[in-house]
Amino acid sequence: MTTKRGMLLAAGLSLAGLVLWAAAPADGPLLTRAKALFQPLPKAQESAANPLRPVRVELGKMLYYEPRLSKSGVFSCNSCHNLATYGVDNGATSMGHKWTLGPRNAPTTLNAASHVSQFWDGRAKDVEEQAKGPVLNPKEMASPHGRFVVERIASIPEYVDLFQKAFAGEVHPLTYDNVAKAIGAFERTLVTPGRFDKFLGGDLGALTAEEKAGLDLFIETGCVACHMGPAVGGGMYQKFGVYKPFQTLTRSKTVDNGRFEATRAEADRFLFKVPGLRNVANTYPYFHDGSVWGLGEAVKDMGELQLDKKLTEAEIKSILSFLRSLTGEVPREARTLPLLPPSTEKTSRPEYD
Amino acid sequence: MTTKRGMLLAAGLSLAGLVLWAAAPADGPLLTRAKALFQPLPKAQESAANPLRPVRVELGKMLYYEPRLSKSGVFSCNSCHNLATYGVDNGATSMGHKWTLGPRNAPTTLNAASHVSQFWDGRAKDVEEQAKGPVLNPKEMASPHGRFVVERIASIPEYVDLFQKAFAGEVHPLTYDNVAKAIGAFERTLVTPGRFDKFLGGDLGALTAEEKAGLDLFIETGCVACHMGPAVGGGMYQKFGVYKPFQTLTRSKTVDNGRFEATRAEADRFLFKVPGLRNVANTYPYFHDGSVWGLGEAVKDMGELQLDKKLTEAEIKSILSFLRSLTGEVPREARTLPLLPPSTEKTSRPEYD
Repeated sequence: MTTKRGMLLAAGLSLAGLVLWAAAPADGPLLTRAKALFQPLPKAQESAANPLRPVRVELGKMLYYEPRLSKSGVFSCNSCHNLATYGVDNGATSMGHKWTLGPRNAPTTLNAASHVSQFWDGRAKDVEEQAKGPVLNPKEMASPHGRFVVERIASIPEYVDLFQKAFAGEVHPLTYDNVAKAIGAFERTLVTPGRFDKFLGGDLGALTAEEKAGLDLFIETGCVACHMGPAVGGGMYQKFGVYKPFQTLTRSKTVDNGRFEATRAEADRFLFKVPGLRNVANTYPYFHDGSVWGLGEAVKDMGELQLDKKLTEAEIKSILSFLRSLTGEVPREARTLPLLPPSTEKTSRPEYD
Repeated sequence: MTTKRGMLLAAGLSLAGLVLWAAAPADGPLLTRAKALFQPLPKAQESAANPLRPVRVELGKMLYYEPRLSKSGVFSCNSCHNLATYGVDNGATSMGHKWTLGPRNAPTTLNAASHVSQFWDGRAKDVEEQAKGPVLNPKEMASPHGRFVVERIASIPEYVDLFQKAFAGEVHPLTYDNVAKAIGAFERTLVTPGRFDKFLGGDLGALTAEEKAGLDLFIETGCVACHMGPAVGGGMYQKFGVYKPFQTLTRSKTVDNGRFEATRAEADRFLFKVPGLRNVANTYPYFHDGSVWGLGEAVKDMGELQLDKKLTEAEIKSILSFLRSLTGEVPREARTLPLLPPSTEKTSRPEYD
């Protein structure tokens, strides 16, 4: 059968097989590899130190949407971490008190509690510690100190009652730490499972052939070296700009030293927490300063800066296909605005200066 | 039986009756009077010109929560008409673009479509016309013109598709007028029935004895001359300061000419649309400039300015009891944040100047 026709046929079949392999990697082995690198999102991001009792989560939700945590009454957590836009504000950096832009891009609160730490430089160990920052940051919510926040909340009887229930047994249930703890409890429920979790659970049809090819390429290219785990990132720090300074590609206006700012250790210069890529198609613009708006451009930059790889247009398109499959569902309950209790005559009024 | 004891007994009974009457007016007659003055809220505030088809209402909800309607991407309708705080921002006036305070207090969007017109000076005939104002106001959302808004929305395929569905059959479904029309459709669903509607429906136990006494006093005092109808107001214009200039009591910082600013008719000087009192306990501060924070003080001022009556502390307390019963339920569906579609490379980016 080694006729010319037979050889052509064999070559043709082989070529067809190659094309088929490139377009659709064998699902079983891909799933096995993926399961070794990623995990499905948990139902809630539990913490032994902050049990997710419903009353605490509900109080935390109220505080997450509470404009009175800001000096002006203009900003709540949800202003910059808007759950209608996947936990971000889609600005390069965020607008705060007295129309001041902050220095860094607001990371999404969705799935954030699954990260190793909080903020781009990891300076807060968990969402509870993180929540205490922006409320008091003069460029963000600008409350002058924790006591200001506690006094404002303490002037509202409904809140006093809820703190007593949410932190039952504590001598002082209403403290600034507990404000943050309640917000953290709510944030721990901000989990957005989607089709990728179904795939990881064994449903091979949950991703399309293109998305699976993109996942395969995401793994092969080396993106998974940092973007792994349930949040597809968020598990480690990495130098931004391994092969060349990041600003050569991102056109960043300022050079941010990253984790160095938090630790002052030279080894931490230009290190940033690796962002999680869940819902990444919706959390533009990208990088610590939001300097890149297109996800395709961000993928291209990542290849060149972090992996010394010039990805082709086709490769970028394929990886984008996978990344878009990471968009999940923001829980409806978390997205349902609470009805906030009214201020009283003892409540401090908005201050705009 | 005309003994001294008998006379004393009769007087005593009569006094007891008087006290009883003052504390608890006869329910039946009160209901009859109330039904002649007020109406239960409708299920939705229908409009022949803007049919409330679900796809239009849903699109309007997305636009109500859409920060991209503002030039900066910082403000949505919900920023100042926050459904977590009963359709207001609880500021004296509202914070807008470039940290600019507006001149007037943000009225609630709840039940607003039941009003005779929109804005404090009634310069918009309905919620559809109203919605076009703040988006383009340089002190509010600051979009430079309707075309800017339409082009931004037209850059997002999901919106283009929704406009085609919500305004099916129209040659140009995506226009600035239709942006406002969709928002108006959503606002027409913002109805907050509560215990007062049950009372008006014949459930005499829906209000407490104190609340019914307050309702009776609210009618007797003459508040109902303006605050009537389903929204307990919103049906007419009235001079603010009938018996003396309003600023003598409110300590307003500026003197607002009210409807005169809209019509330039001398007869309209100091006329304002009568606010609806639904949810009034939560929509502080009060009056067109938010100059009065306490509801009791507002009631006291109203008595003196509008009715030439110095209400006693007991009378104010009684009326407050009724007013607090007007707090209804903000519909959950309206309070559930939509998931907004992402921008594309064609979408204009936030501008902060």
